[in-house]
Amino acid sequence: IPVLALGIGSPTWAVEAAHERGSLIVSLVGAPAHAESAIRAGADLLVAQGTDAGGHTGPIGTFSLVPQVVDVAAGRPVLAAGGVATGRHLAAALALGAEGVWMGTAFLASVDARPSGSVLDKLLAAGPGDTVVSRSDSGKTLRMLRSAWSDEWEAPEAPTPLSMPYQDILIGDLLGQILRHEVAPLVHEAAGQGVAHLTAQEPVAEIMGRLVREADQVLADLGTTRSASPASIRPAT
Amino acid sequence: IPVLALGIGSPTWAVEAAHERGSLIVSLVGAPAHAESAIRAGADLLVAQGTDAGGHTGPIGTFSLVPQVVDVAAGRPVLAAGGVATGRHLAAALALGAEGVWMGTAFLASVDARPSGSVLDKLLAAGPGDTVVSRSDSGKTLRMLRSAWSDEWEAPEAPTPLSMPYQDILIGDLLGQILRHEVAPLVHEAAGQGVAHLTAQEPVAEIMGRLVREADQVLADLGTTRSASPASIRPAT
Repeated sequence: IPVLALGIGSPTWAVEAAHERGSLIVSLVGAPAHAESAIRAGADLLVAQGTDAGGHTGPIGTFSLVPQVVDVAAGRPVLAAGGVATGRHLAAALALGAEGVWMGTAFLASVDARPSGSVLDKLLAAGPGDTVVSRSDSGKTLRMLRSAWSDEWEAPEAPTPLSMPYQDILIGDLLGQILRHEVAPLVHEAAGQGVAHLTAQEPVAEIMGRLVREADQVLADLGTTRSASPASIRPAT
Repeated sequence: IPVLALGIGSPTWAVEAAHERGSLIVSLVGAPAHAESAIRAGADLLVAQGTDAGGHTGPIGTFSLVPQVVDVAAGRPVLAAGGVATGRHLAAALALGAEGVWMGTAFLASVDARPSGSVLDKLLAAGPGDTVVSRSDSGKTLRMLRSAWSDEWEAPEAPTPLSMPYQDILIGDLLGQILRHEVAPLVHEAAGQGVAHLTAQEPVAEIMGRLVREADQVLADLGTTRSASPASIRPAT
């Protein structure tokens, strides 16, 4: 199935040209207002991407965003994105009204993604607080692994990043050389808050298998939740 | 049941003194590391409160945070907080591994909360992008309705807010007068990203009834999800 996924806005001319060629249009949106304009442009499927996500991202949390986009979508399929790392997240996304999930960070450290040595080390070492939102790569807010790069651009005396596309024109060659020569303190990667779940390099097939098995188990357990009695809690004195 | 809920840190002396008096300790945490220290201090129940939440809040999204806190909690009960506004959120919280939810914003506009006229107007009018995280009230990061107050403190020429408790000492009387005299442009309220769901003033009993009915329906639907076949999607040409 030909698919065109649009990450920063869904211009009507692009949607129409792709539709004429028989392509599905997937629009990534970070706010209900973005969803409305994507639908007006003709999007077939929406990805509700919360602030938890890696890469370009807005301020609304995935948990808050998904039902709001589902309400705007009025029956069009919605995928949840931003923080999807386990089967619990997949099951929760379905509970929030999504038809499925859209993942990126979960695959960054995979065998199939073949990350460079320094990027892999940083991905596997990253904890839940090790991502930041910074304009220092593209000029737009982008969640990435925290590094000396993001720290220096956040310093009080640092210049304000340029707007898109000028920031990338300014620093793109430098970023390329940082990655090529693996300048470890400055190496970084767009990554979401699910990066904390990456603890070993695995094939994508294993990641997907575990995700589906866990989601299936969670959904089965939830089916019995409704009849279960609440557990009693007592002080730990 | 006597309960002591601790919102910014769980000091061991406070936990022990409350336990001696037969009280349960509820610790609100915004990161897995906070959960670990709350458990060391003796917390009985954890509230995993994501960045979506109103009031003091950290950077990790609710969707990303809850499973990470559940993993740290090692069997202790965890409630999900931050953005819980509908039964879909309650069902999703259970899918993420929480035992239940902790809500605040959902009740702010209720008949029972009796908000002042200008606060009620702002709560009902607020959309998904109308909250900001600011240090301007307490000195710590706190999600609130965006207003002229937060805008002015974010302006490039504005002073940096003082640290807790000095910011509140500096501006507490002023904030009190702003609320007392309902100075509309400056009136604000701690509120989470679920504020977008507030569209009418209702009794808490109605809010709770709808929440439970919707969650029950979502859980019932999820029970049948596993056997359903995926819907087909075709381009909208």
